[in-house]
Amino acid sequence: MERSNKPHLHPEVTVTRAPNVTATWFRWDEVLEERLTDLLSRRLITGERAMLAHVYLKKGCVVPKHHHDNEQFTYILEGALRFFVGDDGAHEVIVKAGEVLHLPSNLPHEALALEDTLDFDIFCPPRQDWLNKTDDYLRR
Amino acid sequence: MERSNKPHLHPEVTVTRAPNVTATWFRWDEVLEERLTDLLSRRLITGERAMLAHVYLKKGCVVPKHHHDNEQFTYILEGALRFFVGDDGAHEVIVKAGEVLHLPSNLPHEALALEDTLDFDIFCPPRQDWLNKTDDYLRR
Repeated sequence: MERSNKPHLHPEVTVTRAPNVTATWFRWDEVLEERLTDLLSRRLITGERAMLAHVYLKKGCVVPKHHHDNEQFTYILEGALRFFVGDDGAHEVIVKAGEVLHLPSNLPHEALALEDTLDFDIFCPPRQDWLNKTDDYLRR
Repeated sequence: MERSNKPHLHPEVTVTRAPNVTATWFRWDEVLEERLTDLLSRRLITGERAMLAHVYLKKGCVVPKHHHDNEQFTYILEGALRFFVGDDGAHEVIVKAGEVLHLPSNLPHEALALEDTLDFDIFCPPRQDWLNKTDDYLRR
């Protein structure tokens, strides 16, 4: 199958192996961008076991302290985030482009964008609160 | 905790929340690079439920047809890979920088590097064959 020049949101590369076994091919810049606030938006690619997110934070954006069962990897592609980690938020780390922060299940964390930032997050399993839009803490 | 200027492979941001609940901070260029062949090397960041990999493929590198239970997302950061997907390898897709190919569990695939490529792979769960080096198909 050759690459199509037509605009597409979720192009599919169908394979014949079995019903419902389908490789799917995405271009990030064609995935729907969801705006949460003036400072925060995101794009999601969701699989069965994991979710990928491009998270766009403007300088000064604050992600309030929260935690979740989902294991999280935060890979900064552009910009920098200052994280406050742990129950008391006293553990601080600045994560810059080319760096990854691994957050195990249920570890509280908050973040502040030190610059305009492209944050690539991986969640395992997918964030159901992001899919069903019950993530009110991000929408204030 | 401030960023250290000392070289480190797996710097840890220790938090007090509970034993064994530790955020870990990585710089990709300080993670050990494992050379598989003259054309192929990789760096791994492994969590409990998922594994991240920077895979470096020189132009012309072939990853032979294989499959695995692990769900896979292939996000091309630089370069381009031509994938052949499905049992017969007849389904072809070129994945370029800024694009993602999602491969569900057990879908056979092979790949050819069309350029020198930085491929960012996410596997869920982690690839045990990559951790215990029983991935002979990649080492020929």
